[in-house]
Amino acid sequence: MARIKLIDFIRNVPDWPVEGIQFKDITTLCVNSIPFKESINQIVKHYKKKKIDKVAAIEARGYVFGGAIAYLLDAGFVLIRKKGKLPWKCHQEEYELEYGTDIIEMHQDAIDEGENVLLFDDLLATGGTAKAAAKLVEKAGGIVAGIAFVIELTGSLHGRDLLKGYDILSLVEIPVEE
Amino acid sequence: MARIKLIDFIRNVPDWPVEGIQFKDITTLCVNSIPFKESINQIVKHYKKKKIDKVAAIEARGYVFGGAIAYLLDAGFVLIRKKGKLPWKCHQEEYELEYGTDIIEMHQDAIDEGENVLLFDDLLATGGTAKAAAKLVEKAGGIVAGIAFVIELTGSLHGRDLLKGYDILSLVEIPVEE
Repeated sequence: MARIKLIDFIRNVPDWPVEGIQFKDITTLCVNSIPFKESINQIVKHYKKKKIDKVAAIEARGYVFGGAIAYLLDAGFVLIRKKGKLPWKCHQEEYELEYGTDIIEMHQDAIDEGENVLLFDDLLATGGTAKAAAKLVEKAGGIVAGIAFVIELTGSLHGRDLLKGYDILSLVEIPVEE
Repeated sequence: MARIKLIDFIRNVPDWPVEGIQFKDITTLCVNSIPFKESINQIVKHYKKKKIDKVAAIEARGYVFGGAIAYLLDAGFVLIRKKGKLPWKCHQEEYELEYGTDIIEMHQDAIDEGENVLLFDDLLATGGTAKAAAKLVEKAGGIVAGIAFVIELTGSLHGRDLLKGYDILSLVEIPVEE
């Protein structure tokens, strides 16, 4: 099969959710089984040798790829959610948004001490959410074996710098200007 | 491998999200790769012969299993979300809750005329959300080839009756009393 370009399947939506933002719509990649499977395969290939025990993903788009990655790596799947959505005892992490802060949570019993955890989110922008997710995993005693994204926004956001020290994989780089 | 009982991996959380509700927590099934993979395999096996073009799932827990099911069926994946979260032109369906109504949306270009679509959600209760999701698929010209759940609450809720005529699969039945 000829190598496909994943970026061709990502739709740019101008002025969404607010004016001035060029939103990267990944749903157009997901609806086509060829780039969807290719994205998952590339991530699985990169982390296969690390013996991943759990894949933890951030809701909601993170779950679309994360569940399949966990399945293929023979790993358990951990749900990281916004505050108040998980029913059991949680670890919490607060992180900064452009205006104000937000909180993500993970069940305290979702990860055991010393487990290798692959984090997944669909998009790396400032890195704030992923960094908070990494702290959640470490609070539970897990080891962050890597952080994977489909899309990385490069340029002025410097998300990769915030995640220095982790094994980062992104499949598609899209430059942004501010 | 000895046959595992999926129900043993589902945690009952009393009085969540409100007093009197016995919440069925599926995250304890997801964190263990054995019941997680077994759930996905059972659903894939049931619908494999139907030549599924797309798997459509309802956020957020639906995505955890839905992405893996789509991967294994060589199908595209369609995101059904709460109102206002998808960036492109949407079909909308309103459905009733215990108090008031809610709206789910799906991109208008996510499904092509005549495609076979498998719907997935983690839990069947009253069937209201799944019914609205089926209408969304049909509005786009798709054929609902089946509706799959991990958990079905049986007894007083009659969710299965609301979905009469569809090929329904649920892996675990849990009786509820009201």
